[in-house]
Amino acid sequence: MPELRKDPILGRWVIISTGRAQRPKDFYTCPDKPDTKGCPFCEGREEMTPPEIFAFRSHQSRPNSPGWEVRVVPNKYPALRIEGELGKEGRGIYDRMNGIGAHEVIIETPDHHKCLEMHTRESLSKILETYKLRIVDLTQDRRFKYILIFRNEGKAAGASLSHPHSQLIATPITPKRVKEELTGALSYFNYKDRCIFCDILRQEIAEHTRIVYENELFVSFCPFASRFPFEIWILPKAHHADYQSLQSGEMHILADMLIVTLSKLGKALNHPQYNFILHTAPIRWPRKDYWRTLEFDFHWHVEIMPRLTQLAGFEWGTGFYINPTAPEEAAKYLRAIDL
Amino acid sequence: MPELRKDPILGRWVIISTGRAQRPKDFYTCPDKPDTKGCPFCEGREEMTPPEIFAFRSHQSRPNSPGWEVRVVPNKYPALRIEGELGKEGRGIYDRMNGIGAHEVIIETPDHHKCLEMHTRESLSKILETYKLRIVDLTQDRRFKYILIFRNEGKAAGASLSHPHSQLIATPITPKRVKEELTGALSYFNYKDRCIFCDILRQEIAEHTRIVYENELFVSFCPFASRFPFEIWILPKAHHADYQSLQSGEMHILADMLIVTLSKLGKALNHPQYNFILHTAPIRWPRKDYWRTLEFDFHWHVEIMPRLTQLAGFEWGTGFYINPTAPEEAAKYLRAIDL
Repeated sequence: MPELRKDPILGRWVIISTGRAQRPKDFYTCPDKPDTKGCPFCEGREEMTPPEIFAFRSHQSRPNSPGWEVRVVPNKYPALRIEGELGKEGRGIYDRMNGIGAHEVIIETPDHHKCLEMHTRESLSKILETYKLRIVDLTQDRRFKYILIFRNEGKAAGASLSHPHSQLIATPITPKRVKEELTGALSYFNYKDRCIFCDILRQEIAEHTRIVYENELFVSFCPFASRFPFEIWILPKAHHADYQSLQSGEMHILADMLIVTLSKLGKALNHPQYNFILHTAPIRWPRKDYWRTLEFDFHWHVEIMPRLTQLAGFEWGTGFYINPTAPEEAAKYLRAIDL
Repeated sequence: MPELRKDPILGRWVIISTGRAQRPKDFYTCPDKPDTKGCPFCEGREEMTPPEIFAFRSHQSRPNSPGWEVRVVPNKYPALRIEGELGKEGRGIYDRMNGIGAHEVIIETPDHHKCLEMHTRESLSKILETYKLRIVDLTQDRRFKYILIFRNEGKAAGASLSHPHSQLIATPITPKRVKEELTGALSYFNYKDRCIFCDILRQEIAEHTRIVYENELFVSFCPFASRFPFEIWILPKAHHADYQSLQSGEMHILADMLIVTLSKLGKALNHPQYNFILHTAPIRWPRKDYWRTLEFDFHWHVEIMPRLTQLAGFEWGTGFYINPTAPEEAAKYLRAIDL
């Protein structure tokens, strides 16, 4: 019997359709063959990107030259442009504004073949620190309301270049998906006086059936209402609304979490293509008023969505998802993987 | 300069990123090579499906034998099961219920190679009439709240079988996506005392820049805040909340609309893969109370979404879409196509 499960934050239902169950090897995807030829993100080709915004690089090296570990550049084909005014206006029944925003590429490594999980804790910490530094810097631009950090791994996940990179987009409006999460978390908080993510964590740790990995500061697990086979969320155990509240000394513990979780996923599914999304609080949002304190009711986290199944008319028409792998099965499988 | 546009119903923003503009031929997709070998939906293989629920067939022919024009069967691998009770329950913080529902396949034609737009108005009318009859029949089952009719054309759109077919799923809850549309339409109605879809129609017909085709009862157009290149909506000019309010005598006019619109799309993009979704009102929903009359504020319609671009982390993280083709360009291109 398939089961309908509700995501407690978004109210989104999923169909866990284990009758159609597929085993991990049914999903095996062929990893992209990365090609360094003409890659603009490889070391020594710094002139192929716009001038760098930030880099971790050796003291001897000069900007836009070799010698870097992590390098941030503007996206050469930005979805949003940094220059200009918002120009909000109506057109009859419709509303529009100029596509103002920031669109940056965080080149994670000079090495074309180094996946996220192949990093050491130390080198991955620098990427995670870069996320924080870019958020803090862009928060100063008062036109922006939200900053999204994400990663597309593989072509099916939307990556157009195979060199390992993350992306940052700063938007002049708080995106709908983020608002829904804030609204869901707030309505739970108003009812219970507790953070819904903290409550989820408590229940997941107690039940332990959906846990993938746990270290001193973080937990990864397959969520109860997983939309996709092997979907994984990573939550900090301590309650914080903002990713950028993470201390530099804590970055290597998040790095450990990511390396272990992604290595397990990579080994289980033969390096699946996936999307990685950082869910952090908006940088400009009513943070405190008589009815809410964003600091109390939102909890930053990471969502990892392997791209193993195809979205079809049903998902588009309903917002429901059909997931052929129960999260309990996926988590059990991932827990059992030795690294 | 990219432009941010807001969908007036859902409040969803899209980025019309014409700087990255692609011409229709950039999207050319290779049509699936349909294969009749072992196809369970072809005429003469009726025993390969579960027994039929309904069919338009010649008077001499018997059920589950050749001689049909349209045939409805239960999905052999249903996402939801028809038998059983809902069994709603909580599990700590989470909610679940049994996956009760109906999942039917509407086999549109005995001919494996006959796309929707290759039908005559008369034969397509029978498919459209079948949608209506199945909705009316399933409305009697009081466990169901919503009935979704959709079509996945091509593998990228999620079709697992190439024989032309539509699907029907009846769900025990009103899906999130539908609720959002109802809520958006209601809040406009409360403000304006007018249906938002009727207002959209008025503006589209007056501006004419996004119109694809218009006949006596229907209009097809590329919506102002199109998520995807060549996205098309079809709206009835007369205000009705329910698809099933369509009279049998009007079906051939909807058939004409679909044949012309899909033929233009097929010619423009070399038979793209697409999802086709019927948005109709829930069958069980507070239809009339002191603050709303569903009959006044919702307006059924069809959404056609060609699958030409890849969703990536940005779309997943924000609910924003990046669309490289302005709807005005797409509509102009489609209008100019001679059939």
